[in-house]
Amino acid sequence: FVLSPSISTSSVLSQKSKILSHDPPLAATNTVLSKDESRDFMAIFPDLVRDLTDAGRHSDIPDVTKWYAKVLQYNVPSGKKNRGLALVVAYKMLAQPSELTPENLHLAQILGWCVEILQAFLLVMDDVMDNATTRVFWGRSKAPNQKKENIVFVNLSDGLNSEQGIYQLLRRYFSSLPCYVNLIHLFHDVSLKTSMGQSLDLSTANDLSKFTMDRYEAIVKYKTAFYSFQLPVALAMHMAGMQDVEVHRQARTLLLEMGHFFQVQDDYLDCFGTPDVTGKIGTDIEDGKCSWLAVVALQRATPAQRKLMEVN
Amino acid sequence: FVLSPSISTSSVLSQKSKILSHDPPLAATNTVLSKDESRDFMAIFPDLVRDLTDAGRHSDIPDVTKWYAKVLQYNVPSGKKNRGLALVVAYKMLAQPSELTPENLHLAQILGWCVEILQAFLLVMDDVMDNATTRVFWGRSKAPNQKKENIVFVNLSDGLNSEQGIYQLLRRYFSSLPCYVNLIHLFHDVSLKTSMGQSLDLSTANDLSKFTMDRYEAIVKYKTAFYSFQLPVALAMHMAGMQDVEVHRQARTLLLEMGHFFQVQDDYLDCFGTPDVTGKIGTDIEDGKCSWLAVVALQRATPAQRKLMEVN
Repeated sequence: FVLSPSISTSSVLSQKSKILSHDPPLAATNTVLSKDESRDFMAIFPDLVRDLTDAGRHSDIPDVTKWYAKVLQYNVPSGKKNRGLALVVAYKMLAQPSELTPENLHLAQILGWCVEILQAFLLVMDDVMDNATTRVFWGRSKAPNQKKENIVFVNLSDGLNSEQGIYQLLRRYFSSLPCYVNLIHLFHDVSLKTSMGQSLDLSTANDLSKFTMDRYEAIVKYKTAFYSFQLPVALAMHMAGMQDVEVHRQARTLLLEMGHFFQVQDDYLDCFGTPDVTGKIGTDIEDGKCSWLAVVALQRATPAQRKLMEVN
Repeated sequence: FVLSPSISTSSVLSQKSKILSHDPPLAATNTVLSKDESRDFMAIFPDLVRDLTDAGRHSDIPDVTKWYAKVLQYNVPSGKKNRGLALVVAYKMLAQPSELTPENLHLAQILGWCVEILQAFLLVMDDVMDNATTRVFWGRSKAPNQKKENIVFVNLSDGLNSEQGIYQLLRRYFSSLPCYVNLIHLFHDVSLKTSMGQSLDLSTANDLSKFTMDRYEAIVKYKTAFYSFQLPVALAMHMAGMQDVEVHRQARTLLLEMGHFFQVQDDYLDCFGTPDVTGKIGTDIEDGKCSWLAVVALQRATPAQRKLMEVN
């Protein structure tokens, strides 16, 4: 479940298969992520867009549903889909072999797409809040007479639409299953934690007195680790019928550690990564972000160096 | 259930009691909104803030939970609370008399506050999208060194936090009741419809070729009428055990009509209302909104008048 922004999916997976090769769990032998896995996962996405926008729904506002389909197609499957695929792999590892029917694997993929929709929603929200300049806002480019702000903020309600798509899909595919309410609760809990993390991040930026390692760890945990690492695995656990609170707690502890590692690496790459590889030009320094580099730099800074950082 | 921005709650209610006095339903005799009703409703709000922010939750980020409490206290109960109170009144009218226990009335009030939280969330989103200038963004005013955008956008994640509060409260108070899943579904459906309405509204603004009465009606229905009129009553119906799809459909038809009337009136007041009474300075014209006045004006305009409106 390593989500590395700098390493392509295939190399992550070969690393991962090496790690697993020491002592693979019985059910894991055919669960290592592959290109097939990714292709199978992509293959069902158009069906889900159709589910969310088909003619019977909101037929009196066809413009909005057409636009909604475009927003989903553009924003959701454009990433590496590691979170959604991690859910599918986790389910394959955790479910009883007798449960691994084509129907259940299809459901796991749908649930994986729900995580990807959440990710797309969070990116849109984060973009709006960060005022990021490098990630392209995809607005109504065919309406050049529209004010620029509208192009940006059409994305905001697009993001809200997308988030609701999660619950529409859960309802359509999972509402008759015993895990349904647990799945909804998990999405709600993690959404709340993530937006709290966004609040914490924003209220910390540009205030060096708050750049402590404790606060950094809290931001990472709430803003990134819960939704990127705990969520996919916990959903898979619920789908596999695992409801033991203590097992969920232990898994969470490990997954949040992985999230921490991921974010420290991400912060490092924001500054030192190659844009051609990472796909973005980092702005953590100019945004005054409480990044790992900034916290560690302040730990080691002389008073004069600290002053220099404050002034800038 | 008249929600009038220009008329105080008490005068609305005296109108309402006049209407009802023709032929009041049996259960309605003691359900007319009163100042007591409003006071009782307000009285439970601090408990709900405590539920959402108490020390056991997210104890590692006390700053965020303290801030969250302030956001809820500032944004949620500041309006007239007509939507939340409408839910309580509807429940009193619809429930069997034997069901009207103090416990159930308390639950109806909590559900009413969930509607008020949704309303606060939608206002924050709408403000961000509209870039409204007259409604004050309440930011971290004690941090004057923060960039202005941060003050605005802290509100965005605050809004997201608030929205999640709905589902936290539903879970705490309703998860053991048979109506629980229906309540969640209704909040999700209405949230989706409303954000679709916001999309439609934004994509229509400043484009006179789209200012038709059909489109106006669609914007009003999706952006306002579902959440302001249908939602409170449909929630009360579910709480009262009414699940008949046809009864819900009939109620929705009537409630959406009322929502249409409300919005036409609101549009009129945006232009001709007295700010001291309405509490806001309208910006529909400068925002290029597809308001009822604009649509009707275009229906009656000569080509020269239409041209004048387009140019401006």
